[in-house]
Parts: sequence; C-alpha cells; structure tokens
Amino acid sequence: MGSNDRLFEVSRRAMLSAFAAFTAFPMLHTPAMAQTAVTDPLPSWNDTVTKKAIVTFVERVTKQGSPDLVPSAERIATFDNDGTLWAEQPMYFQLAFALDRVKALAPLHPEWKDKEPFASLLKGDLKAALGGEAAIFQIVTVTHSGMTTVEFDQIVRDWIATARHPVTERLYTEMVYQPMLELLAYLRGNGFKTFIVSGGGIDFMRGFADRIYGIPPEQIVGSSGKLNFELRDGKPVLVKLPELDFNDDKTGKPVGIQMHIGRRPIAAFGNSDGDLQMLEWAKGGAGVRFALIVHHTDAEREWAYDRTSSIGRLDKALDTAEAMGWTVVDMKNDWKEIFPFGSK
Amino acid sequence: MGSNDRLFEVSRRAMLSAFAAFTAFPMLHTPAMAQTAVTDPLPSWNDTVTKKAIVTFVERVTKQGSPDLVPSAERIATFDNDGTLWAEQPMYFQLAFALDRVKALAPLHPEWKDKEPFASLLKGDLKAALGGEAAIFQIVTVTHSGMTTVEFDQIVRDWIATARHPVTERLYTEMVYQPMLELLAYLRGNGFKTFIVSGGGIDFMRGFADRIYGIPPEQIVGSSGKLNFELRDGKPVLVKLPELDFNDDKTGKPVGIQMHIGRRPIAAFGNSDGDLQMLEWAKGGAGVRFALIVHHTDAEREWAYDRTSSIGRLDKALDTAEAMGWTVVDMKNDWKEIFPFGSK
Repeated sequence: MGSNDRLFEVSRRAMLSAFAAFTAFPMLHTPAMAQTAVTDPLPSWNDTVTKKAIVTFVERVTKQGSPDLVPSAERIATFDNDGTLWAEQPMYFQLAFALDRVKALAPLHPEWKDKEPFASLLKGDLKAALGGEAAIFQIVTVTHSGMTTVEFDQIVRDWIATARHPVTERLYTEMVYQPMLELLAYLRGNGFKTFIVSGGGIDFMRGFADRIYGIPPEQIVGSSGKLNFELRDGKPVLVKLPELDFNDDKTGKPVGIQMHIGRRPIAAFGNSDGDLQMLEWAKGGAGVRFALIVHHTDAEREWAYDRTSSIGRLDKALDTAEAMGWTVVDMKNDWKEIFPFGSK
Repeated sequence: MGSNDRLFEVSRRAMLSAFAAFTAFPMLHTPAMAQTAVTDPLPSWNDTVTKKAIVTFVERVTKQGSPDLVPSAERIATFDNDGTLWAEQPMYFQLAFALDRVKALAPLHPEWKDKEPFASLLKGDLKAALGGEAAIFQIVTVTHSGMTTVEFDQIVRDWIATARHPVTERLYTEMVYQPMLELLAYLRGNGFKTFIVSGGGIDFMRGFADRIYGIPPEQIVGSSGKLNFELRDGKPVLVKLPELDFNDDKTGKPVGIQMHIGRRPIAAFGNSDGDLQMLEWAKGGAGVRFALIVHHTDAEREWAYDRTSSIGRLDKALDTAEAMGWTVVDMKNDWKEIFPFGSK
C-alpha cells in the first residue's frame, strides 16, 4: 500500500469505528445497525491486556445493569496532549511554534541580534538558544503576548496549517496518535465528555484541538497568561500580557480540572511525570476509575524515551503506575498503527 | 389559586415549554409533535417588545435558511447569576451562607468574640459587622477556606437544602426567576450551550446550579480562591486556601469567559454594572448578537433598585444599554410571574 492509500485506509477504519461507537447507543439500535456495532471500535490497538483493560473499564461503567454504572454526566475523561495525543519529539510542538515566531518577528526587533537567547536562535544555534528554562520562558513569553486573543488565534491557525515536523516532514496536525483518536471517539460514543488537560498553552491548543481531536475550546484546560480587557476604538479586546497566570502541570493539573470542570474525572490519560497528580486525582475518587500512561517504547516507528528524557520524562509516574496497577501502554506492542499516515 | 396550586401550574407550564423547545428540533418533528411545538416556550413573559426581541434573535440565529444562522457549537449564552437568575436582596445569598457559617464555626473560634467583624456579627449587629468591604472579605475568606473542595461542596449542599430567605421564608433555591428558567430551557432547546458567568464563588454555585438551572459544573465560571493539591494519608485532596485567585466581575468576566469557554458568547444576560464588560464582549463579535439586562422595577412582587443600590448597582450599564439599544427587561411589565411560587 502506498502511504496515501494507507492514510485513507486508516482514516476509513477510524470513521467506521467512530460510527460503530455512535451506534452503540441503545436508542439508535435497529437490526441493520446492530451489525455495524460489532465492528471493533479500537482497530489500531493490538489485542493485548491494555486494550482489554480499556474495554473492560468502559463496559463496567456504561453497561445498563452493571453495578458500577456511572451516570453519563459523570463520565469525565481527561487527556494530556503532548506525548499522549500527539508526539512531542524532538521538541514540544508549541516550542517549534515559538521559534518560528521569533524568526517571523525578528525584523520588528532589531535589538534581538545582540540579545540572548534571540541572537543565538537567529544565528541558528538552537542548542545555545535553548540552554535553560529561563531562555525558553523568555522565548515563549515574547511570542505569546502583546497581541489580542483574536490575533493570537489567527497566528496559531496560520502556523499550524503549514508548519511541518522536522523529522517526518508531516504537518504537526498529522502527528497525532491514531489509537488515541479511536479511544477519544470510543469514549464519546459511550457518553463520555472528553477534555484536554495539558501543560501546553490553552489558547494555542484551541487553534486546532476541535478539528483534530473533536474537543471544543470549552473542554480544553491548559497553561495561560494573564489577560487584560480593553476598549480599542470602542471595540472590546482581550490583550495577552507577558505574565504567567496558571501553570497547568503536575499539581496544577488537578487544580485546573477543579477550576474548569468541577468534577473529578473517572478516567485520565497521560504519558509523563507531569501527569502523575492528574492520574492520582482521577483514581482517588469513589467507584471504578481508570488511569492510563502512554509509554514511548518504539524507537523505530516513533521515539523511545522515559526516565532520563528532558522532554516528557516518565520516571516517578512509571513507578507509581507499576505499584498501583495502572494501565501502561507499551506503544511498540500495544499499537498496530502509530500515526494516521503510518509511522516515522 | 392557592400558592401550591400556583406553583404546580407554573411548573407544569415550564415543563411544557421545555418540551416544546425540545421538540422544535426539526429531526424530531412528527405531525403529532408539531402541534405541541406551537406551545409558547416563554409562558411567564408578557407579550411585550422584550419577549419579541428574544424570540426574534433566537429565530434569526437558529432557523435553517436564515442568513444569520449560527452553527450550534457557536451558540454560547452566558448568564450572570445574582439578580439575573435568582434574587440578590436583601443581601447576596452567598453572603447569607457566609454569615450562617460564621455562627456555625464560632464554637471552634472562641477568639472571635473579641475580634471584629466576628464579634459584632455574633452579637447580631449585622450593620456593624458588614461595615466595609474588608470586613465582608474577611468573613467570606474564613468561611470559604481551610477545607477540601469535597468538604466545601458538602457544606454548601447541606446549607442550601435547608436555609431560608429572610423575607419570603422560601428556600433560596426557590428564589429563582421563573421567566429566566424558561429562557434557559428555550435557548438549550434551540441548540445553545448555557453558562453561568458570575462574580459569585464557582464552588458555591456548583452546589446547586445543575439541579436548579440545569447548568452542569463544567459550565460555571465564577470567582475562586487558590487551591493546593496535597496527599493526606496517601489520598489526594484539593485544599481551599485563604487567597483570592480570580475575581470574576466587571473586566474579569470577559477574561473568565476566555479562560473557561474560549469562544465569545453570542448572547449575554446580566443585571448590573458588574455585567457591563461581559455584555460589551458578547456584542463586540461579528454577526447577530444579543445583550439583555434584567432591570429590577417591581417593588411589590420583588425589589426595585438600580442606580444607587449597593447590591446589584445598575447605572453605567443602564446608560450603555439605552445608548446601544440593548434589550432591557422591565420586570414589572415584562414578567407575568417572578418566582416559581409566585411573588414576594
């Protein structure tokens, strides 16, 4: 199969599985539809214990008559984004966005050619430019503030429509995990409301999450900067200020969940130590709960990294997962496909 | 009609109107249902220009073939709570909650009998206790922090189940505006997603908003204190800290909307100067937009107050509404009923 055929085949399967999940609602059952409903809703997942754990959980909390039935309104599922729904190597995609923005804005900032970290970045010395957290914070701040929310949204949409991944040369929006797209559709088909709870920028993710994940702006929780309401020529605008307001990572994730959602998720999905507290929070409630960690184990088709990686470090959360019996996805063995287009 | 009969009659009408709104979805039309659909969805609204303005707006943005049709996902409507969905006189209900909590907690705080504003409050001298913003802030802070979010939620639910309004002696949850309940149901029946955006506490409102308004926790935006994630005996908890995190009032409302919803509402409903910026924000977008102010004009059936009231002051927003042609509800003339049980 050529890569286009393959993409088409995988997309078609995903559509079918989404349809199957949708028709799984009893009220829509007709004899003709019941047949489609037996289609595997998770075709890109191998038949391993991981897939079985997911399906068993969903059936326990959704099947009529199950002692563990959870009302639809309480079926809240939260997903980390970077490394859980889409890739995060060789650098967080939002950082790639910030670097591209520095280059685009450089003509308006002649002073940058003598000022670090911008000088190194503009000379192409990424290693020097991204040498520390302070430098990265500075790059993100100047590229994510000073404009209105409407302007920023357009900047993100323009970038994401054309920017390509440095290794695969695919659009970043193609670098999503096919098995996770199926999982999102499967959960929604079973009455779950799916949320993103990410350390990434809330306004950044809103520029594409609806289109690529089917997750609308109001179901996205993320890090954010302060906003200022102003009237400009009598028209109201919200200006993005160069000041961090909320860091939606680690212990921030349960806090973000409480602020935005106000219910405790019954299922949470992550891939790094930044997700540990979200998973603990989800598992800490009463009744049947589900916590899943995506473990990046496939150097050939994606990337292999965990305890020592500076991006998406998975160390303490992996120990906790093992100790607590949480579900851990072994990408290499559990996933038939990685991306909709195939693999790296 | 006795008051119970009247309550029943009004409730029955509200149910019918909600049903009518629901059956207004074209896909559910059958000849038998089409008849019910002509039932007035807003029976507690008199046939005035106000009601006409609401219905005209909803039809313009929802009718198939309308040049102003708005996709269902973009049909975001935001509502203030105090004075817009329920009453706010003679004091904000959340302040009544805080005062009751001070009394309940007093045995644990012997030092309060010598410390203002608690001393005056415990002696029954409300006027002295609530003499300034700092005093009120202190009372709210001590009663809204120090416990976990789960504990606070239970405290609110216990209080709201039994506490009664000092004038009507009704449960606070009965002090909701019947016409606004119908409006919420009418909008939802037409594909709108309804949100509360209130200066009140987000965790306070979540204790009853789902039950009385049909608005779930994840669709509530409000003021909030900082939270701290902790493990207590290995169990994760979120502790409410005595520190304001976000003040969802005035310019804070558009900010809260952007943070939580990430879309600009196409319709916004308020009653005071605290709602001005939310209404400006909603009206400032492209396409057909709707802004409505509830003007408290009925001293007999409810309360009459506006420009000089310390609670729910409506001054600048009333001028703006007049200048911009926003819709203003004259409660006395536009509302057939005030509360589900009748009126004060």
